[in-house]
Amino acid sequence: MSTKATFYHAGCPVCVAAEKNVALSLDPARYEVEIVDLGKDKARIPEARDAGVKSVPALVLEGQAFHINFGADLAAL
Amino acid sequence: MSTKATFYHAGCPVCVAAEKNVALSLDPARYEVEIVDLGKDKARIPEARDAGVKSVPALVLEGQAFHINFGADLAAL
Repeated sequence: MSTKATFYHAGCPVCVAAEKNVALSLDPARYEVEIVDLGKDKARIPEARDAGVKSVPALVLEGQAFHINFGADLAAL
Repeated sequence: MSTKATFYHAGCPVCVAAEKNVALSLDPARYEVEIVDLGKDKARIPEARDAGVKSVPALVLEGQAFHINFGADLAAL
């Protein structure tokens, strides 16, 4: 069974490293990873905020937000 | 080819969630994940610090430290 995972970023260097090393390293047998660039797709900022995302890069897995290092505050996007 | 990934934690609730949802969700075909409890295994704190870990939980992948949310400062362990 594949679970949806959403990785929110804003194109920053910290985000790119987290995407390459963490988000894209999740087990493909268990997770279907969607990558969302909130810098370009601002319409999805409220959805990210509702999921508990406070800064990017962040990964939402099983309804929980995991902030990975710190790239930018959601309020700055 | 399996790459080593090290997940450092200190038994805190934030750490447990990150271990379950992020560290143990990495692709087993690509990563061999070692879980290190720095609260119990203080001898490994210098190694974690050298890898760039500043707080736990943190995941070290390909020589880069990724801090996942915030449980405890390394200096507090």
